[in-house]
Amino acid sequence: MTQSNEKKSHRDVNSDQPIGVAVLGLGNVGTEVVRILRDNADDLQARVGAPLVLRGIAVRKVGADRGVPEELLTTDAAALVARDDVDIVVEVIGGIDLPRELILSALNAGKSVVTANKALLADYTGEIAEAAERNRADLYFEAAVAGAIPVVRPLMQSLAGDRVDRVVGIVNGTTNFILSAMAETGADYEVTLKEASRLGYAEADPTADVEGYDAAAKAAILASLAFHTRVTAADVYREGISKVTAEDLATAEAVGCTVKLLALCERVTDSDGKDRISVRVYPALIPLEHPLATVNGAFNAIVVEAKAAGRLMFYGQGAGGAPTASAVMGDLVMAARNKFFGGRGPGESTYAKLPIAPIGDTPTRYHVNLHVADRAGVLAGVATAFADRGVSISTVRQEGAGEGARLVVVTHRATDAALSETVAALAQLEYVTAVTSVLRLEGTEE
Amino acid sequence: MTQSNEKKSHRDVNSDQPIGVAVLGLGNVGTEVVRILRDNADDLQARVGAPLVLRGIAVRKVGADRGVPEELLTTDAAALVARDDVDIVVEVIGGIDLPRELILSALNAGKSVVTANKALLADYTGEIAEAAERNRADLYFEAAVAGAIPVVRPLMQSLAGDRVDRVVGIVNGTTNFILSAMAETGADYEVTLKEASRLGYAEADPTADVEGYDAAAKAAILASLAFHTRVTAADVYREGISKVTAEDLATAEAVGCTVKLLALCERVTDSDGKDRISVRVYPALIPLEHPLATVNGAFNAIVVEAKAAGRLMFYGQGAGGAPTASAVMGDLVMAARNKFFGGRGPGESTYAKLPIAPIGDTPTRYHVNLHVADRAGVLAGVATAFADRGVSISTVRQEGAGEGARLVVVTHRATDAALSETVAALAQLEYVTAVTSVLRLEGTEE
Repeated sequence: MTQSNEKKSHRDVNSDQPIGVAVLGLGNVGTEVVRILRDNADDLQARVGAPLVLRGIAVRKVGADRGVPEELLTTDAAALVARDDVDIVVEVIGGIDLPRELILSALNAGKSVVTANKALLADYTGEIAEAAERNRADLYFEAAVAGAIPVVRPLMQSLAGDRVDRVVGIVNGTTNFILSAMAETGADYEVTLKEASRLGYAEADPTADVEGYDAAAKAAILASLAFHTRVTAADVYREGISKVTAEDLATAEAVGCTVKLLALCERVTDSDGKDRISVRVYPALIPLEHPLATVNGAFNAIVVEAKAAGRLMFYGQGAGGAPTASAVMGDLVMAARNKFFGGRGPGESTYAKLPIAPIGDTPTRYHVNLHVADRAGVLAGVATAFADRGVSISTVRQEGAGEGARLVVVTHRATDAALSETVAALAQLEYVTAVTSVLRLEGTEE
Repeated sequence: MTQSNEKKSHRDVNSDQPIGVAVLGLGNVGTEVVRILRDNADDLQARVGAPLVLRGIAVRKVGADRGVPEELLTTDAAALVARDDVDIVVEVIGGIDLPRELILSALNAGKSVVTANKALLADYTGEIAEAAERNRADLYFEAAVAGAIPVVRPLMQSLAGDRVDRVVGIVNGTTNFILSAMAETGADYEVTLKEASRLGYAEADPTADVEGYDAAAKAAILASLAFHTRVTAADVYREGISKVTAEDLATAEAVGCTVKLLALCERVTDSDGKDRISVRVYPALIPLEHPLATVNGAFNAIVVEAKAAGRLMFYGQGAGGAPTASAVMGDLVMAARNKFFGGRGPGESTYAKLPIAPIGDTPTRYHVNLHVADRAGVLAGVATAFADRGVSISTVRQEGAGEGARLVVVTHRATDAALSETVAALAQLEYVTAVTSVLRLEGTEE
């Protein structure tokens, strides 16, 4: 404690005066946060300068056997937040309405807030960030994106003097587990989803994960930070993985790729030199040599490309009680230090106010699988369907013969609108018997 | 500028009052810092809240054609640092004595310091950090370790509530380039070093890189942050790569490994439950499936293992003007925000004061290649040499016959002292004709 006493000597704050913490929610993450607060109290005190004291834990139902002293539990979250001896509120309830109300009332009372709530931040970032600014209160949310992986802080702080051009991430463990398993076993989506549920990697209602809502919320947060622009979940183009087939994975493997659900945040510079941003979530082919291709199972990874820094990658456990609690605790220590020493963490930065480019305007590459009649002129006809819509073809491969004849077309970068029009036109061609797979291709140069 | 005006309205500081910056040094990094300060002035102002104004650049020789207005240049670095209108000093000169003096005088005048100087920090961290504390001044040094890769901030802040057990990194681009090239071409160290020099990946005097001094300085900084303990370069056990042979690389390949110069910072818990830390730099075998094995060329990567977070990896460009400048600029924006809004970045944390374990006490695994006489009893004799020193063998492989007979021994984890005694004893055995390669093995579980 020499260190903290030494600090105390030139601070205005009394280091014996503890910093009060309220934890809202006692699920996987809340339980770990409470455990660390209790087990590591001495270390935390030394790192903050003053003791962190847990004032209470808001739960839906007070019951014995929650592994914490019963007197800490309360069902009255609002009263806990309002207590005079609570300086910092840790919100790990999940959901929208209740945490929104509690966070706003904490911030309006000048208390610091640490939250892991990506859905709330992606929908109400403006309201919450403004409440933090207005009250000069700290709002930290490292745990909201990619669990233990530090990516919020690097984007907000380490890259604060650089220009971020692209953020591409695997930010949802459930879908990555399913796609990794499909690639490995060759099984179908439905079968793999069931297996993922059985193993605890997918929730009873997996919609938020498999339809990309969770990834879209994280993409909105990442894009807001990367581009100094307020981006909400509604701004994110979103497709889930429920339509990905075993054939898609087989196709991917055949062309040296794999399929990943990507969260993509890109700066798109228009021909007139003006910047817009494109934020989207969808399953896409990426080459096996891409750094994200080897991120398997429930792991997360995020690639950030910035003008001066070049390409950075962050990798680790994107979910789970302990990893998420690690991120919460880092934020909590920083918020507590600010309470103790004075000062504030960086607030929202939205000055750039870049417009969102619609998905149709977004340049992507496509990989299209067609079953075709095996006769002369088919390739020329297919090529014309692309050319007519201004889509340049990178490679065409003919496979099989007779009934099994196929064309595999990979395009250069074109707008998503031109590409989807092309695919619609192909389906109408009399010698195209089926468009069996259409996948975007990301992570390549052209 | 709406954002900054809005902020101004509830701050005490006048946002029209610029924040003065002095840049010391105009090498690769300094040149990029100055370029970004000039090219991105509007963005930087919006992010800080006030304009950043470059007051001057200290250089050894003022001359035309440095790409910056000549009136900004000065050879009097001390006078530049002392100017009343300089709030933040960016030190990118390199070296020890001059930057030390300049940084101390800046901190003693209450100015914020951003530095990329790993050698200085690893030798004088105590003196400099204490000056920062005493004067309540900011000291930022993200650029000192692994260039653009955010690792200082994640260790200091994101993991502030967790317990870090291990940091393993490839933190020197020159040696990684050489080892990658040796693995790829099969060429010898000397030949590859020459090629690296020719390509600009090694300096005219490559000692600091190839003998591991640069990596050791970074290891000291990483260990200090990870373990809340002051660690200097002198505490780091250090071996360079100049003795790594083409045969070592071939051996590595044959056993599914590669050779990397690793910076290792580990918490070692003794049998009595007390923690010590081991900080070391040496070339070691790592399995090809280890995340660091695929980090090639001039790239850097750092793996951090923490109790709650699990294993995290950070990857990117570890050197070069622009990537290092990205890290400097992030620190500069944070330091400037603190000047503008009040508050301070986190200071040094050394409360844990863990003792340094000597290399002899450090548990490692060895991979030993022996040329032996081809006769009965040799394997038993060699095995006895290990067993007598308490070193448990994991695998032994016999290769070749007659003149070319070899034994390849891989040990379990044992103290480095016991292992080196064993190797010394092996060399004395009459039927061991040569100990051709002794390499530590890292990144495995046992």
